Amino acid sequence: MNQPNSTADPSRWTTSLSESTAEMISIRGYDLADLIGTVSFPAVVHLLYTGELPDVATARLIDAVMVASIDHGAGAPSVLAARTAISGGASLQAAAAAGLLTLGEFHGAAVESSMQAIAAVADATRASKRRALDAVADELVAEWRARGKRVPGFGHRQHKRRDPRLDRLLTVARDADVAGDHLEAALAIEAALARAIGRPMPINIDGVMAAILNEVGFPSDLGNALFIVSRLAGILAHANEERQTMTPMRRIDPVHHIYSGPTSRGLPTTGVVASRATSGHP
Amino acid sequence: MNQPNSTADPSRWTTSLSESTAEMISIRGYDLADLIGTVSFPAVVHLLYTGELPDVATARLIDAVMVASIDHGAGAPSVLAARTAISGGASLQAAAAAGLLTLGEFHGAAVESSMQAIAAVADATRASKRRALDAVADELVAEWRARGKRVPGFGHRQHKRRDPRLDRLLTVARDADVAGDHLEAALAIEAALARAIGRPMPINIDGVMAAILNEVGFPSDLGNALFIVSRLAGILAHANEERQTMTPMRRIDPVHHIYSGPTSRGLPTTGVVASRATSGHP
Amino acid sequence: MNQPNSTADPSRWTTSLSESTAEMISIRGYDLADLIGTVSFPAVVHLLYTGELPDVATARLIDAVMVASIDHGAGAPSVLAARTAISGGASLQAAAAAGLLTLGEFHGAAVESSMQAIAAVADATRASKRRALDAVADELVAEWRARGKRVPGFGHRQHKRRDPRLDRLLTVARDADVAGDHLEAALAIEAALARAIGRPMPINIDGVMAAILNEVGFPSDLGNALFIVSRLAGILAHANEERQTMTPMRRIDPVHHIYSGPTSRGLPTTGVVASRATSGHP
Amino acid sequence: MNQPNSTADPSRWTTSLSESTAEMISIRGYDLADLIGTVSFPAVVHLLYTGELPDVATARLIDAVMVASIDHGAGAPSVLAARTAISGGASLQAAAAAGLLTLGEFHGAAVESSMQAIAAVADATRASKRRALDAVADELVAEWRARGKRVPGFGHRQHKRRDPRLDRLLTVARDADVAGDHLEAALAIEAALARAIGRPMPINIDGVMAAILNEVGFPSDLGNALFIVSRLAGILAHANEERQTMTPMRRIDPVHHIYSGPTSRGLPTTGVVASRATSGHP
Repeated sequence: MNQPNSTADPSRWTTSLSESTAEMISIRGYDLADLIGTVSFPAVVHLLYTGELPDVATARLIDAVMVASIDHGAGAPSVLAARTAISGGASLQAAAAAGLLTLGEFHGAAVESSMQAIAAVADATRASKRRALDAVADELVAEWRARGKRVPGFGHRQHKRRDPRLDRLLTVARDADVAGDHLEAALAIEAALARAIGRPMPINIDGVMAAILNEVGFPSDLGNALFIVSRLAGILAHANEERQTMTPMRRIDPVHHIYSGPTSRGLPTTGVVASRATSGHP
Repeated sequence: MNQPNSTADPSRWTTSLSESTAEMISIRGYDLADLIGTVSFPAVVHLLYTGELPDVATARLIDAVMVASIDHGAGAPSVLAARTAISGGASLQAAAAAGLLTLGEFHGAAVESSMQAIAAVADATRASKRRALDAVADELVAEWRARGKRVPGFGHRQHKRRDPRLDRLLTVARDADVAGDHLEAALAIEAALARAIGRPMPINIDGVMAAILNEVGFPSDLGNALFIVSRLAGILAHANEERQTMTPMRRIDPVHHIYSGPTSRGLPTTGVVASRATSGHP
Repeated sequence: MNQPNSTADPSRWTTSLSESTAEMISIRGYDLADLIGTVSFPAVVHLLYTGELPDVATARLIDAVMVASIDHGAGAPSVLAARTAISGGASLQAAAAAGLLTLGEFHGAAVESSMQAIAAVADATRASKRRALDAVADELVAEWRARGKRVPGFGHRQHKRRDPRLDRLLTVARDADVAGDHLEAALAIEAALARAIGRPMPINIDGVMAAILNEVGFPSDLGNALFIVSRLAGILAHANEERQTMTPMRRIDPVHHIYSGPTSRGLPTTGVVASRATSGHP
Repeated sequence: MNQPNSTADPSRWTTSLSESTAEMISIRGYDLADLIGTVSFPAVVHLLYTGELPDVATARLIDAVMVASIDHGAGAPSVLAARTAISGGASLQAAAAAGLLTLGEFHGAAVESSMQAIAAVADATRASKRRALDAVADELVAEWRARGKRVPGFGHRQHKRRDPRLDRLLTVARDADVAGDHLEAALAIEAALARAIGRPMPINIDGVMAAILNEVGFPSDLGNALFIVSRLAGILAHANEERQTMTPMRRIDPVHHIYSGPTSRGLPTTGVVASRATSGHP
């Protein structure tokens, strides 16, 4: 990245992300017009965040973690805040902003710190000649607990036994051949937590995202950003549903809502659209 | 969609979007675990917003308009606000919220109204036996101007002659065989504006998104949402760059910044990851 | 106010509000140091918003309407959104922002439009030689209802018979000798609404603020601002209580909360601090 | 304050701040109707935040620090963000929220941490029988510098020698007879910083607010709230000026703006409205 511009003319500063002129927009050196219709949205997010287009396996995983994060039902705090805002008369974008403001240490913005915790265990295990992964994980858990903190990326108020997104994400990671010591470290922390606490404190969506993003070398300072972009898509759907179908200023009960959409159905066997490698620029 | 729940027990309300239990999360009836790694993120956004998975052509277009909207350089108002917020010490998500709050009638939230304006011209032309498209477009332009308003989706403070995203999006739409009377209507409004004003007032990103979304039957009330999700990805990249490379509380000049990233480069010929139809659930 | 700076050097623009140099800060030409400890906060708000210090009666009323707006209990949508945000880990200022975003047409941001509606009735009555106030109010009510809109400033989901702030504000206005045709117009609209609907639709806090602000010549475009500043004080108190006393990520029921503070008590007879005119700069 | 409601029925929770029923609103046990027009707005803020009405000296100081914080010119980051938001088409309240989101560790939200730093020095000096205040301050400064942090409440990018609000606030505090060891501690930290750095790093508005609020026993966790409420009044004035007088989507230069309001003027000698004690409920 570029250097701090603390020197010289403060009215001149630099960005390494993108450029826009009257005739052209470019992202990290690629003409945006070349990317449109050629590269998938998650792959362009990867380009913007890391500086390079992803390889095929990485692109598939970025896409998968974004799909996994998109929505978690109408009782999520971010959804409740966005519904409350639009119910008072806010615009769609203002309601979305209210939703984003509920994301924090306790809800949806723990990917960055979870990536660091998992990497610490993976790195310490790799560096050690003598200690087993489990011992390193026990130590990390003990340290966090000594500070009175929860290990970020583990535990969920609703999915107390197993996050329903976890197994599928693990499978996708293994299929993409990227499952390695970070996913192992995450599972070791989960086991260490269960040992320490005496009940399951399973990997949550932040934690599994964190492990996968570590595996593909994603920068930890933008781990939360992937979650935030994806979840905003869900928040906006709820805000719009509130605007279109509910009476303004209603009391929005955080628990007693009922799903009234289509009943459970399987994916169609043809026509599903996934991220796929192509032989290049059409 | 579901009906207003103005009756009965106000502590019971319904949503048709998604469901979350201890064991399962579903989106519009599909198990989220089935979607992860199988269906692309833009296609899942389409599912969440419309209730159904897109067909192949639609999925490609949703992906394309999201890529087209992702970033517009460091001088966009949303970027400046997000950089200003994080420069004062805000979290990434709070900076992103500040960025979203700059989106409005004049910047990035005109897709919905543009969809309606374009549909009005397309519908009136279709309904008319005698009037040509151009005459209908002239009339719409005259009406908006009489109200002292700009037709939403046309004109850009920087791209005064032609938006660099336009031609590529038109090509993608034609390749996907969805170009029809809404894109024609948009081009007719552009021509009518030039006639009325005496200088170009070209289709902007909101306008071309609007026309394409009309072509694939996307609900207009969520047109802005697609733009907002995509642009948030860009806003977050800028906010993080500010946090990582700049001194806090600097004066952020809105004009005099310089792109310092990789120089212009072409797409690789292999390994590019695009949205492609698959034969089904792997 | 100053003129649009659409001309000349766009990097030079003007403000008529305040000035800050290395040695001095001034508000509308007054040295801020002269105002501190000399002029009350509501009077300085009036100075900033109108350009001039208020007279004694106006200052008292600005203070009174700000006190009247400060809080409305833990079930207000703005409070619920702010509590939800801080419960997820947001900062105090980010939680406050989430709270502000719930204020809108249906909750707390109807002062401006109510000022305009009330002024329309007051002006039309004054202009008319033949029509009574009641007839003008009936006409306004009929027009709003024909458009399917609620007259802004009237009706409250909780105070269905009479807003408990109303009588006291009317008394303060009469004591300050500013009650005139705008308050009469507001009461006439209330009566016209009851006639039209067949049940009470009483003046709410937005409406009585609107009438009083009209009486003292306050600019309508900043009527909502007075409410917003005052209510933010309440929102912050709730956000901080949530942060200090509640478990993170709890389900925040919008209805079933109980007041646990001091029981009902009367004001002390000495030592109460009010806005009072002084003989000048100490 | 009340206890965490982690037990029993989670749909029942308590607040000690305020109560609202169909007939009544109360703040900390006082009927809001009794407060309106009787107690000044800053005194009611004190009631809401601390649980009790302030004494006369405290009320005067709360009022003074709120006046001191109200605005700092058009170049403040919070003002620039709010102007940017409303320039894109945001509502007044959404623009205000964007402004609030820029307040943070580096701008306007350092009162809480400054109160704690100043109290640490004051308490350590009081506890010590042998060490002088200066030595304690030197030690605190050394500790903060060793951690690579700036002592909160000291230093300003514009007022490099002396904050123009400082002397007046000190005078008001001395007049109110509340200047004591916290103000001494703040001045000692200022001197220690100058010794350590070799140039002035003067007390800023956050720091002087912090010292004064410590003197009157204000809770540190709501120190930032007082600043935020007051500054929001200024942010809203700027947002409205932008909306009313500027062209949408202009480039807002953060430095090159010029004050165009009334020229420097002295306070009138009569009719100024300040917070004064009254003999009681009128």
